[in-house]
Amino acid sequence: MTDASPIRAAVLVIGDEILSGRTKDRNTGFIADTLTDIGIDLEEVRIVSDRMEAIVEAVRALSSRYDYVLTTGGIGPTHDDITADAVAAAFGVPLVFDDRATAILKAHYDRRGVEMNDARRRMTRIPEGADLIPNPVSAAPGFVIGNVFVMAGVQAIMQAMMDDVVRRLPAARPLLSETIEAGRGEGDVAAALTRVQEAFPAVRMGSYPYHDGTRFTTRLVLRSRDGAMLATAAGALRAALAEI
Amino acid sequence: MTDASPIRAAVLVIGDEILSGRTKDRNTGFIADTLTDIGIDLEEVRIVSDRMEAIVEAVRALSSRYDYVLTTGGIGPTHDDITADAVAAAFGVPLVFDDRATAILKAHYDRRGVEMNDARRRMTRIPEGADLIPNPVSAAPGFVIGNVFVMAGVQAIMQAMMDDVVRRLPAARPLLSETIEAGRGEGDVAAALTRVQEAFPAVRMGSYPYHDGTRFTTRLVLRSRDGAMLATAAGALRAALAEI
Repeated sequence: MTDASPIRAAVLVIGDEILSGRTKDRNTGFIADTLTDIGIDLEEVRIVSDRMEAIVEAVRALSSRYDYVLTTGGIGPTHDDITADAVAAAFGVPLVFDDRATAILKAHYDRRGVEMNDARRRMTRIPEGADLIPNPVSAAPGFVIGNVFVMAGVQAIMQAMMDDVVRRLPAARPLLSETIEAGRGEGDVAAALTRVQEAFPAVRMGSYPYHDGTRFTTRLVLRSRDGAMLATAAGALRAALAEI
Repeated sequence: MTDASPIRAAVLVIGDEILSGRTKDRNTGFIADTLTDIGIDLEEVRIVSDRMEAIVEAVRALSSRYDYVLTTGGIGPTHDDITADAVAAAFGVPLVFDDRATAILKAHYDRRGVEMNDARRRMTRIPEGADLIPNPVSAAPGFVIGNVFVMAGVQAIMQAMMDDVVRRLPAARPLLSETIEAGRGEGDVAAALTRVQEAFPAVRMGSYPYHDGTRFTTRLVLRSRDGAMLATAAGALRAALAEI
């Protein structure tokens, strides 16, 4: 049984507030968990500022290199929200006032008696040819163009949008993992781990040292899409650790 | 008074465990806060996996583009810790068993009656010509070569290493910020914000929507290295908001 060809993804986080430290990025962790659950490999994350060239360059680099790119941030109504502009530029298509997005926002604001002003209308600007990603929280949609999924940065909205994104992504064979608490420092387990890794090159083995409150210990994680091989490798690693 | 030329930095986080979601990256937020405190602009973050080519490419791209690069992760004793190898390759220098690192680790392990095995010796491998970054937590040092600072991924160790890194970075004029709670949704404040931004192009203004538990509201943040101009711009923005 061999590993199926992996589906590779990247995340692009857009926003000065993350880079200044003012806002702590929790979206990447959520997306990483979600992609792992459905068996897609997150291979790279970039965080860039709200500058046009920075976003365009990152979108181009990541969308040409990975199967899917998921972006968060920069699709609100203010002048520093330029993600839609940048993604349109990266794909070489015009940014247009989208009829579907306008209808959604108009209905949303009408229900609330809120005025559709220029700032809110800004959120109906969508790259030509893109599909909308519904926003069940505050209506203003995300969108998908080519292999790039564009989501909001506000955590609750991003998470709601991910429900739709996941439905659009292909079902992959999930990556299985097995965790072994080594109960020892990394330096004590490294030789055994290397030996078992060499015996099972198709199982990816990682070593994660942490402080358990009392001492440094190590969590060993084995990952594979092949459950039988994973179990065999984990057994071999447990046996090797018992011999230390 | 004009803005001093900014000092630009990037962060490179190395580790499969972050990309899988198993470990949540808290190091970037800490480094972002620290750099902001000392007036250095964090302009880009990348998270890459424990693969040689990925790390080498990211180190080269970021170190040629930014004044400083700070990396975290991948300098432990196990086979998947290849950051030192990759940074040496990126700079085209050999990776050598470093006498200073060996002395530090030997003294540390001798005091604890711990054996200096091959895995621990691995942590004395340092790119030729690099300076060491002390590790007051668990001894195994980080290092700095060229404009790249290489730190551990374990949070407590990284934070301790940052004390030394900060001392090596140039003192910059700190970026000042002023935060205004708009008390309204982004769509209501965008026009006023755009107008004031246009009047003060040198003050960077960001708009950060969030849910305060009851409703969506907006935090407006103004940033500048010029305190007087920042205060004037904040006053203008407050006045513009009062007129909505």
